[in-house]
Amino acid sequence: MDELLLRAIQDKIRSILPEITTLRRQIHQEPEIGLATQATRQKIRAALQETSLVIQPPLLEADLIADLPKPGAKMICLRADTDGLPIQEATGLAYRSRVPGAMHACGHDGHTAILVGTARVLDAFRSELPVAVRFIFQPGEEMICGGKTLVRRGACAGAAAAYALHNWPGLPVGHIAARSGPLFSAGAMFSITLTGRGCHGAMPEQGLNPLPVAAALITRFQELHQRLHPVDGSILSVCSIHGGESKNIIPDSAVIRGTTRFLSTAAGDRIEAEMRRIIAAIATESGTTAEMEYEKEYSLPVLNTETGFERIRATVQRYLAEEAWQPLEKPNMTCEDFAFYLEGREGAMFLLGNGTGSPGLHNAEFDFDDRSLETGILVMSLLALNHS
Amino acid sequence: MDELLLRAIQDKIRSILPEITTLRRQIHQEPEIGLATQATRQKIRAALQETSLVIQPPLLEADLIADLPKPGAKMICLRADTDGLPIQEATGLAYRSRVPGAMHACGHDGHTAILVGTARVLDAFRSELPVAVRFIFQPGEEMICGGKTLVRRGACAGAAAAYALHNWPGLPVGHIAARSGPLFSAGAMFSITLTGRGCHGAMPEQGLNPLPVAAALITRFQELHQRLHPVDGSILSVCSIHGGESKNIIPDSAVIRGTTRFLSTAAGDRIEAEMRRIIAAIATESGTTAEMEYEKEYSLPVLNTETGFERIRATVQRYLAEEAWQPLEKPNMTCEDFAFYLEGREGAMFLLGNGTGSPGLHNAEFDFDDRSLETGILVMSLLALNHS
Repeated sequence: MDELLLRAIQDKIRSILPEITTLRRQIHQEPEIGLATQATRQKIRAALQETSLVIQPPLLEADLIADLPKPGAKMICLRADTDGLPIQEATGLAYRSRVPGAMHACGHDGHTAILVGTARVLDAFRSELPVAVRFIFQPGEEMICGGKTLVRRGACAGAAAAYALHNWPGLPVGHIAARSGPLFSAGAMFSITLTGRGCHGAMPEQGLNPLPVAAALITRFQELHQRLHPVDGSILSVCSIHGGESKNIIPDSAVIRGTTRFLSTAAGDRIEAEMRRIIAAIATESGTTAEMEYEKEYSLPVLNTETGFERIRATVQRYLAEEAWQPLEKPNMTCEDFAFYLEGREGAMFLLGNGTGSPGLHNAEFDFDDRSLETGILVMSLLALNHS
Repeated sequence: MDELLLRAIQDKIRSILPEITTLRRQIHQEPEIGLATQATRQKIRAALQETSLVIQPPLLEADLIADLPKPGAKMICLRADTDGLPIQEATGLAYRSRVPGAMHACGHDGHTAILVGTARVLDAFRSELPVAVRFIFQPGEEMICGGKTLVRRGACAGAAAAYALHNWPGLPVGHIAARSGPLFSAGAMFSITLTGRGCHGAMPEQGLNPLPVAAALITRFQELHQRLHPVDGSILSVCSIHGGESKNIIPDSAVIRGTTRFLSTAAGDRIEAEMRRIIAAIATESGTTAEMEYEKEYSLPVLNTETGFERIRATVQRYLAEEAWQPLEKPNMTCEDFAFYLEGREGAMFLLGNGTGSPGLHNAEFDFDDRSLETGILVMSLLALNHS
């Protein structure tokens, strides 16, 4: 890419930045949760009105897929998640959420605005594009793994590669971090009901107290975590236990809930199998019954391909300031449904600095940092314009 | 006691039985909880109206102490508990509780009616009494250990002995059971708060999960129970644990609650000391903080004296049918504040059969069996009339 084109792109980004910033804040003010993101879809659609993009009919309720076609060329997907969270915002910002109990606490408002900006830039430079580009605005990233459904319904059909970004608290604004291989882990949620037989606490021999059995199970799970984590990075955290309502009545049952995280399908299969083995053994030994619900919606880690990762690294190192590139040592153990876009496909996800002073993701004080919009749009645009 | 007197007593009991049965059911219909048993006190007082008993001013809110004096003779106390329970009655009886959420689920209505009947009988035969008799109608037996307060305020001051009964599901109507030494255990309730440091379940290394620590504590408590129970009969039951609100957020803290039971003050001191030692060790080892609230209102077991027990056994074996006497092998591990009446005093408590088909105590289907009123009044009356 010659200097002239680069300058033209940078100028274009700067020219739309005020509008994109306003859009980001409008989306922030009206967060929508899950798949019901109709108002957000409307805002995106309006912002793409003047472009040549071809808007596709939704595959879910309110996703928006828009194409910049390039006959004969391969297609890449750029994806942003669009949904908010069921959290009461506590930022006190002028553009804070107007929806009680809902807020953009994970910065998807920023991701969406960046992808709109990228679409506007790439539309303006569409003659320079070596590839067709599909822009995917995806709701339901949080909790319901909307990306999996969207991909399974064909959102990426025929695409050669897919890219996405996530803002990252703790990383300086303007910096970008990524790694080859796992970037975000896969995960599952479990809920185990252990049932014994309640009785008066003064006569424990008349019942079968499920609480010491639950204690044994938690101890064995902790040992499993400590055994697997050094081997394959898997995590097993018990996050809640509830059983009993009084100080002197032994309850019938106890419920243990928690989460597992793992960096490959094999590691995920292994931790689940080991948990089931432990549960069965403890139930048999104690005479209780044990049932586990194991929800594994986010069953794939985000696995950046080497090629996809290298494209991001090369783009950042070539076009951004030297300090902007931050190789990432370890994967993050949170889940991201972008994993499903990379199933059998080239591509990668990168982290976009949201500032070292940023409150954490999912914090009621969190806000996307608008100063990173420009960097986000630039990197996404250059990824497409330099793609091969 | 000659046959003639015995027959006269039996006739007297039969003559008042309809009235005592009605009284029992009236008390059942209007259960009162804790110390606020004014209506029950009124019913007792009205039923003693025609007697020569001297009613004392209450020492608590609504206890009723009535004396049959015998100048120069020693005094014995006969005690009934009068309070109901915060349980919604589910019997469907014609005389079921009219008070929502309250019922006589422990048969104190029956105990009260028996003591009123006994007072009526002993008043009628007061010239035959070798001792002064104090009738103590005590509220607050359940939950708040009202008996302890009443005794500490002097309810038994100067009394040489004290007796009481408790109806007993599972024991045939008309049968009586007792043992020398512990009849009911002492007990305490505990609540332990373990505090670590919450974090996201995907990054357990960033926090200090209190749940595996709670699990270790419960396991050690179970081991303590198994170690002490064969030695001194002590019991330690964990009855509830609560910590965490979601599947993927590790909480700051967990609360473990439960009860201990023990058959001597020394055993009670020992189990508490061992628990505190274990808690301190586990907190130190894990880096959590642990605080225990240990409520020991019911800190004394009901310890039947050998003499008191022998009086009951002799009375039953002499005056009741042969099969009526049931020596009791083991103490009951529930608590009874009659324990405090026997602190430094002769006396004993006995169990009065409430029938093999009776629902358990504190069950919403429970009802006192009126067929045992006659036996209860007879044994209590004879204990006093034969006392020395």
